[in-house]
Amino acid sequence: MDHKHSLEEQLELVCASLASTAVERDRQGGHAAAERALLRDSGLLTLAVPTQFGGQGADWPTILRAVRRIAVVDSSLAHLFAFQHLQVASLSFYGSAAQQQGWLTRTVRERWFWGNANNPADRRVTAEEFDEGWVLNGVKSFCSGAVGADVLLVSAHLACGRQIVAVLSTDREGLQIQGDWNAIGQRQTDSGNVVFEDVLIQPEEVLDPGPDGSAWASLRSTLSQAMLANLYLGLAEGAHQAAREHTRLWRRPWVLSNVEQATQDPYVLEKFGEFWVQLRAAEALADVAAQKIEAAWQRGPALTAEERGAASIAVATAKVVAARAALDIGSRLFEVAGTSSLQAPLGHDRFWRNARTHTLHDPIEYKLRDLGNWALNDLYPAQTAYT
Amino acid sequence: MDHKHSLEEQLELVCASLASTAVERDRQGGHAAAERALLRDSGLLTLAVPTQFGGQGADWPTILRAVRRIAVVDSSLAHLFAFQHLQVASLSFYGSAAQQQGWLTRTVRERWFWGNANNPADRRVTAEEFDEGWVLNGVKSFCSGAVGADVLLVSAHLACGRQIVAVLSTDREGLQIQGDWNAIGQRQTDSGNVVFEDVLIQPEEVLDPGPDGSAWASLRSTLSQAMLANLYLGLAEGAHQAAREHTRLWRRPWVLSNVEQATQDPYVLEKFGEFWVQLRAAEALADVAAQKIEAAWQRGPALTAEERGAASIAVATAKVVAARAALDIGSRLFEVAGTSSLQAPLGHDRFWRNARTHTLHDPIEYKLRDLGNWALNDLYPAQTAYT
Amino acid sequence: MDHKHSLEEQLELVCASLASTAVERDRQGGHAAAERALLRDSGLLTLAVPTQFGGQGADWPTILRAVRRIAVVDSSLAHLFAFQHLQVASLSFYGSAAQQQGWLTRTVRERWFWGNANNPADRRVTAEEFDEGWVLNGVKSFCSGAVGADVLLVSAHLACGRQIVAVLSTDREGLQIQGDWNAIGQRQTDSGNVVFEDVLIQPEEVLDPGPDGSAWASLRSTLSQAMLANLYLGLAEGAHQAAREHTRLWRRPWVLSNVEQATQDPYVLEKFGEFWVQLRAAEALADVAAQKIEAAWQRGPALTAEERGAASIAVATAKVVAARAALDIGSRLFEVAGTSSLQAPLGHDRFWRNARTHTLHDPIEYKLRDLGNWALNDLYPAQTAYT
Amino acid sequence: MDHKHSLEEQLELVCASLASTAVERDRQGGHAAAERALLRDSGLLTLAVPTQFGGQGADWPTILRAVRRIAVVDSSLAHLFAFQHLQVASLSFYGSAAQQQGWLTRTVRERWFWGNANNPADRRVTAEEFDEGWVLNGVKSFCSGAVGADVLLVSAHLACGRQIVAVLSTDREGLQIQGDWNAIGQRQTDSGNVVFEDVLIQPEEVLDPGPDGSAWASLRSTLSQAMLANLYLGLAEGAHQAAREHTRLWRRPWVLSNVEQATQDPYVLEKFGEFWVQLRAAEALADVAAQKIEAAWQRGPALTAEERGAASIAVATAKVVAARAALDIGSRLFEVAGTSSLQAPLGHDRFWRNARTHTLHDPIEYKLRDLGNWALNDLYPAQTAYT
Repeated sequence: MDHKHSLEEQLELVCASLASTAVERDRQGGHAAAERALLRDSGLLTLAVPTQFGGQGADWPTILRAVRRIAVVDSSLAHLFAFQHLQVASLSFYGSAAQQQGWLTRTVRERWFWGNANNPADRRVTAEEFDEGWVLNGVKSFCSGAVGADVLLVSAHLACGRQIVAVLSTDREGLQIQGDWNAIGQRQTDSGNVVFEDVLIQPEEVLDPGPDGSAWASLRSTLSQAMLANLYLGLAEGAHQAAREHTRLWRRPWVLSNVEQATQDPYVLEKFGEFWVQLRAAEALADVAAQKIEAAWQRGPALTAEERGAASIAVATAKVVAARAALDIGSRLFEVAGTSSLQAPLGHDRFWRNARTHTLHDPIEYKLRDLGNWALNDLYPAQTAYT
Repeated sequence: MDHKHSLEEQLELVCASLASTAVERDRQGGHAAAERALLRDSGLLTLAVPTQFGGQGADWPTILRAVRRIAVVDSSLAHLFAFQHLQVASLSFYGSAAQQQGWLTRTVRERWFWGNANNPADRRVTAEEFDEGWVLNGVKSFCSGAVGADVLLVSAHLACGRQIVAVLSTDREGLQIQGDWNAIGQRQTDSGNVVFEDVLIQPEEVLDPGPDGSAWASLRSTLSQAMLANLYLGLAEGAHQAAREHTRLWRRPWVLSNVEQATQDPYVLEKFGEFWVQLRAAEALADVAAQKIEAAWQRGPALTAEERGAASIAVATAKVVAARAALDIGSRLFEVAGTSSLQAPLGHDRFWRNARTHTLHDPIEYKLRDLGNWALNDLYPAQTAYT
Repeated sequence: MDHKHSLEEQLELVCASLASTAVERDRQGGHAAAERALLRDSGLLTLAVPTQFGGQGADWPTILRAVRRIAVVDSSLAHLFAFQHLQVASLSFYGSAAQQQGWLTRTVRERWFWGNANNPADRRVTAEEFDEGWVLNGVKSFCSGAVGADVLLVSAHLACGRQIVAVLSTDREGLQIQGDWNAIGQRQTDSGNVVFEDVLIQPEEVLDPGPDGSAWASLRSTLSQAMLANLYLGLAEGAHQAAREHTRLWRRPWVLSNVEQATQDPYVLEKFGEFWVQLRAAEALADVAAQKIEAAWQRGPALTAEERGAASIAVATAKVVAARAALDIGSRLFEVAGTSSLQAPLGHDRFWRNARTHTLHDPIEYKLRDLGNWALNDLYPAQTAYT
Repeated sequence: MDHKHSLEEQLELVCASLASTAVERDRQGGHAAAERALLRDSGLLTLAVPTQFGGQGADWPTILRAVRRIAVVDSSLAHLFAFQHLQVASLSFYGSAAQQQGWLTRTVRERWFWGNANNPADRRVTAEEFDEGWVLNGVKSFCSGAVGADVLLVSAHLACGRQIVAVLSTDREGLQIQGDWNAIGQRQTDSGNVVFEDVLIQPEEVLDPGPDGSAWASLRSTLSQAMLANLYLGLAEGAHQAAREHTRLWRRPWVLSNVEQATQDPYVLEKFGEFWVQLRAAEALADVAAQKIEAAWQRGPALTAEERGAASIAVATAKVVAARAALDIGSRLFEVAGTSSLQAPLGHDRFWRNARTHTLHDPIEYKLRDLGNWALNDLYPAQTAYT
């Protein structure tokens, strides 16, 4: 209780700080060194580390709500924050007891910020056996959080097609992290290229997802998708708050309307009603999904394909609704807030740009196809990096 | 536990029976005497009657789920079923302890089916003081469940504009219940006109909603709206099930598609995905709303305007999403199920016709306006018969 | 001019007559003998017959507008009317000079009403060579206009997969036309099964679509699709007119609105605005498509695949917009017209039922795929029975 | 013919030049001096000047298509270009023969670029009688094209509420044009504030819109709206072309799809189909509206309120569809083009930002209200600055 209270206080402090510079940092893009330091100092990076390793052992609903909360004010930092916990959790999904013990203890002690070089859609990094380990070469794109990270979860493909996953310190020789991310949105996610040049990996650095995609190991993808759903929901809520505040403060009644206050305009109210409905639907579904994630997590390696499938369906459902809410409110906020909201220094377009960018992570229409395949054919989504 | 199990079993039996004749009864319309008898015999009509009066004292989430369940197969009977509980609850909202004692005990003992003559949008029934009571004259339209009811909740307006609400046996002299409902949908809701010709009301038959629309008394409207939301959700689910079954059994792949099975058609899957998302959103929101209804109910007359407002917002949110789901799936089920689903004897158009009819109960756009007024202006909906 | 004037007058007379009984006939379904006689007597059945054969030689924009006009009041009869002209035109697409001369002259002289047994998606009718002709066996479904027709365009498949097309009098031995159409909409299109039992076809009765689907021959499909687009547009317009009239006459202002007249309700006006926009978009696109159809028709057998493709794209574009307009206005008319519009005897649900039924003719999503393939890949739709 | 050819050639040259720097200039914002010079040198600024005054006397469909064409590559310059012709036409709507003669002759001879300080929703500029003229004070916001203009159409309000309109050289004493426009879109429209400090106006500089808003004078608003509709259509087309080119060049098939080329993905094709349908609907409606504008223009001061109303309805219809197309395609282009299209240097977000900005000019929902008022109540839009 006490702990939870303090978590929420920490979150509010972090969010207030992030909010104060979010517009400016969106404009500049690039690496958010100070804000990463803020997250490090907040102690929130150890939320997902089990208490036995010195972490806070928070449950997933708590962590996912924290992601959602941060995304209200800064969806780039929310992404880095979320993926910290995803990489931490990866040790539970893929790591041996010793690996968990080693890296999670150090995560707490050395205040690690985790990043990844793990984009499953980019198979250009190759791994060859070398000595008792592997040597990696190639480039991974869209490596969220790599710049400024202490340690990375990386993946590479063997010639036979099999993927290996490993943990690497970012100062490993041959590893070059390029701060070259420059997209229209999510501008401080440090999601650039990571170049591997003869990077050596030792056997003990390699994680083992277990026999051919176990349900448990592939729950990592489901957790990752749940993080995105909550991030989108936060974005939608942020756009809503911006719309609300600007409309209340600045919107004047349309000259051809019959209302004295813009806040009484029937069409403005209707649109805020539409925003509200989307937000509450996304929230309710995200809450349902978070419960399913937590239940699946509690099952551990005993998790069945059916249980994992059910969680995946709940997450995909929430993700579709949250993605649409973020895009819709991010775009229509201007319709309610009016012309004065268009001023560039206000940065109100960042919600749409962030939503537009992040919702391309994997296509919504394939989420719908998966959901349809379940609804119509009783088939759970294939266990992939996106389900 | 045992009791809950038996409730679900009862429900399944009732639903199976209703389902077997629903298409035919939709065609015929008119009064569903046998199906009302079925409900009476099932014991489900006393769900909302507190145990102290011999009822089952089920909580609202349970009752609302039962409404939802019945609406999957027969949204007309679901409406009659729902409004039974609404009238029963009205005694708690408006009645004195003695009135509750009297009528609720008789509800159980005499196996009453309640109806209403209470359409708040139709103010044509007048009440004049007479002796120590009142005399009522005029016509009420859209009196759901009046035909075949044992007892009615009726309302009338005094010349001063004030409304009085009373409980009347359907065999009261001067009361004429017309089985004249003939709409395109919800064809067995017995929602016709009730004619009052010098109908005398005794003082003890008059309920007292308390001082000028208390939050508690007006929670009746919120409960009523929650019933509609669950009914719409059931309708949407019914349309989905019909779509699913017909598609699996009968739909052939489109000649210009590249798929071997219609169930693999990418556009068919996408549409089922859209159905699914709407169903789960409506369900999650209806569940949230049911919890708020129950919490408000537990507060009793101490309920504040804010608490009532919060419940009202949750219900309105669920109602908008459920209404749209019912209309959308009810119409698009044909797009997935294909031309063979158009055969009139299958009655697959009844979902759309039922949704179309019932969602006109009060306009969705005014729900959105209310929700916008809350989201933007922090104002709860006015306490009316529709919020 | 004189002729055109008289055409419009004829159309108005026909439409007024059809309108007076359309609701009742929608309820009954079945064969519209009297209304077919009305069309026959109107002289409008020879619109597409070239003047050289005694017909009126109207251009396609004129004929398509007539289809649209009739569909405003009766989309079943509009379908029979449209397909009359489609079969007449088929002789130009597939027939020799002698065949055109023979059958078109008789069409005028004997006042033929044409039907079809030509559903390309149903390949159950087989043709075997017999003597110098063929013998046909099997069943065709969805044979619009077969009941009550004098002559049919029929198709059948040889064992080798090739299709043959022929003209047959409906009194031909072995031909059985079943009046078994009973769908939720388009209830008087006489679109039932036609059964072939050893039906003999003479060589001179067989039409020749020319070398493997010439652009010219396959323009028949494009013309057919244009007819559907105009029929949908008429349906949308009919729904709009019903909405407009009912709203003006009967809709009362919503009790929670601030308006004195329902016709001033901001949300009602917004919806009528949405209807209007859809209607005008569909109309403008249908007009563009009709011009392309006429231009392609004028090219005759010299028509190139590109020219045919361009017409097909224009028609598909119009069809998508018209189909959606018909479905949307057909369903939302109730939202503007209010609860009194739900009365079953008014039959206002027939617009949605008719649109729902007819827009399943071929899936809209595959039209969109074709249009996308053109927009993205510069590829015209394949020349099929549906493009 | 020759002339038309040369107009199109000029347009293509201008567009090619604008396109080559559009992304960079969108980033910088500010005044597009070189591009304005390009337009001046192209000779296209005199398109709307009647031939009798040395101009090209092009008809409005031609000019509106030119606006549309330029907006495909640069909607900021398209706006400046469009409003040049609007101000030129204003002399026909409001000016005496002598005023037209004087200013239009100089427009050609001195190669004037017109701007405005005429925002009707901003009434802060006051006019007081002074000597035989007026003195103006105050600020006008959203003065499109003011920076870099040679001459302005300005408006101000008298204490009695009446508006006066005048023509002013931009070097007039007391006039200060601020290059302070900095919005998220339409970044080079020079739409900043214009400050009036004791600006003197001579009687011959004042235009006379005639007796209390004649239909003819207020056709200026309709023309202005038609320009916006065509600008939006150009934007939509520009977004479509960007989507098409990026998808063809760069989009890879989604890893979970079954297609070998992204250009064969069924959902990508469906979306391009949706784009196409919107583009063609907007185009067809814009063409219809342009014809109505031209017909109304040809009527001159004899124009009736009904004729003006009919043109206004056609324009509003086109504007709604074009605005939605621009917003939708501008946002969804990323869904088809994929993650690589998010790179900031490509500037693909400018279509959405431009559409988002410009479509707030006046609210779409009030356009729908006006259209609904016509469709339902047979009432033309009030003659305002926005209809």
